[in-house]
Order: sequence, then C-alpha cells, then structure tokens
Amino acid sequence: MQALKERIMRDGNNLGHGILKVDGFINHQVDPVLMDACGSEFARRFAQVGATRVLTAEISGIAPAVMTARYLNLPVVYARKSKPITMPDTVYLTVAPSHTKGRLVELIVSPEYLGRGERILIIDDFLASGATIQGLVRLTQAAGAEVVGIGALIEKIFEGGRQALAYLNVPIESLVCISSMDDGKIIFAD
Amino acid sequence: MQALKERIMRDGNNLGHGILKVDGFINHQVDPVLMDACGSEFARRFAQVGATRVLTAEISGIAPAVMTARYLNLPVVYARKSKPITMPDTVYLTVAPSHTKGRLVELIVSPEYLGRGERILIIDDFLASGATIQGLVRLTQAAGAEVVGIGALIEKIFEGGRQALAYLNVPIESLVCISSMDDGKIIFAD
Repeated sequence: MQALKERIMRDGNNLGHGILKVDGFINHQVDPVLMDACGSEFARRFAQVGATRVLTAEISGIAPAVMTARYLNLPVVYARKSKPITMPDTVYLTVAPSHTKGRLVELIVSPEYLGRGERILIIDDFLASGATIQGLVRLTQAAGAEVVGIGALIEKIFEGGRQALAYLNVPIESLVCISSMDDGKIIFAD
Repeated sequence: MQALKERIMRDGNNLGHGILKVDGFINHQVDPVLMDACGSEFARRFAQVGATRVLTAEISGIAPAVMTARYLNLPVVYARKSKPITMPDTVYLTVAPSHTKGRLVELIVSPEYLGRGERILIIDDFLASGATIQGLVRLTQAAGAEVVGIGALIEKIFEGGRQALAYLNVPIESLVCISSMDDGKIIFAD
C-alpha cells in the first residue's frame, strides 16, 4: 500500500536489531486518516472470507483493527495483556514472546466475546516472527472458533512469520513488506 | 448521546463498587460503528476549540480518540503505561491511581509528539474521579502545551471528576452522564 510505504520511508526509523520505529503514526502517535485508509484496504482484501469478528492484541493493533472492523461492520475484540476486574474468572489465556519487551506477555480473551463457530479475522500492526499472531490463533482455537484471515500493516519478511503461519492455510495480507533492515536501511520487498 | 445510552442500558453491567462493565462495546470488545458515531459527536462538540492534537491514555481511550481525531483530521497520541524500547531515554512521565487496577499506573508520553504551544484535546472512555485525565493534563502542562477541551464517553458524575477539573476552565463534554449506581441500578442524569 503506497501511502503506508511512503510514510515509513518518511517517518519510520530503523533502530537496529530488527526494530522498526513507527511511533509517529502507528505505535504511540496515530495518524487516524492513514489508519482509516489501511482499514479500508484490509476490508477490501478480506471482503470474501466471511469473518464474523475481528481479533487483535492490545495495544498497537487496536487502531487498524477498529478501522478494519468499521468497514466490515463487525465487532472487534482486543486480547488484554492483564485481566481486568470486569472480566469473568475463567478466560482464555496464552503466552507469547514479545519482540519489543524481551519477555513473555500474556494474551487474554473473555469467552463472552469469542465463541464456538465464529470466523475470526486477525489484524495486527506487525507480522514479524508471527509469535503474537500465533498466540491469537491459539486463543481462537481454544474457543472452538476458526481463523479465516490474517492481516498486518507491516511484514518483516526476513523474520519468517508468514512461513510459521502457513499451516493455517488462510489468506495472509500485509500492506507493506520489508525484506531487509540490515546496515540501518529499510528495504521494501515490492 | 442516545445511541450510547441505549447500548449501556442494553449491555452495560453494574458490577458494584461503582464499576460499570462495558466490555461488550468499549473495553474489550469494541463496536466500531458506535465508536465512530461517538467520534463524530466529539468532533462536533469540539469543532471550535482549535485543538492541534488529541491525547488519550492506553488502552480503552484509543478507539474513541482515534475516531474523534479522524473527524478532526488531527494526530492522536496515546500515553503509554510502560516505556517501549522505541521511546527516547527522556520522556514525560506521571503516575495516576487506577480505579479498576487498585494501584498507581504510569502514564508516559514522548516529547517527540507533545510539544510546546500545542492545543490538546483530551479524550477518554470514562470520566470518574478524573484521576487519569488529571494525569494527562499534567503531561500536557509538563510539555508546555495547553489543554483546550476534555471529552469522555461516560461520566460517573457521583465521583466528582468534573469538579476536580473545573479549575482548568475548559469545555468538558460527556456523551452519557450517570448519576447513580446504587443498589445495582444505572441511573442516567439526563
């Protein structure tokens, strides 16, 4: 997606160790017009998968997931990283390694909002190793629901997440693909 | 705002101790169409305040703030509760008591996205005691910026947040006001 690619070229920052800083428009400050355009594009690409719900992980997945869900007219659920007191005692919980935190984080969804037979579209900001998205897949499967598509704003294809998710045999769509971040550069795949 | 009030009547849950559970459409599962309508309404109410940026706190403020910012065509910044490695070493940080967590939480904003002279519109999900919003006000002031308006989806007027914020002398807009949650009821003020 050209608008997102241009924004990364202008405001993205390669911090080394595979960390792409996009805090100016996705991860701390959000450009809502750009996120709206990304949501519209995801909705177009996943129009035919028959999703009944969008699933993401707090925090940075929320903006693109909400915009996507708005275009698809579906509810969106964000997996929590800690269990609030409003959640029931029994929940779906999995752990996933966090790239930017250097430790395991919990991903928690209430059974109230993820039910048997649902068709789940997963949307997140990054597809890197796929570890967070695989956590969302496990939560979906624990609920007896089915993943029908996976979308990420930015894919770091050199981290292998797409291959790790290939066994699901569902469409995986990234709006921008980065093939290398060696030597301080940001090389796009397309 | 009638649509939000009706949704609270239908799906909101008074858990006691002043806790209103709205996990089905705001705090865990999000209704993006309703959040879009709320954002449109905030944009209408704050059209004249001359905001240059929208500020919220992760996590539950993100959806309504992003929708509001989209209508106002402004960037939105969400204060982080932990400092990611992409943030610079020196940041604005304040602590605020969390109603639902029963402890102090940190609110952190990078100076990259909150600058001197900015006119800040604060949007959050709840206005209760006002403690979180006062934290956002302190971050704004630390940056040499000015709060020009405060919007909340739901105000629990019996917790006194509006009075605590009155000294700012800025417009405070809530889309729904709740006057009492005694005896398991949810009594609306309007």
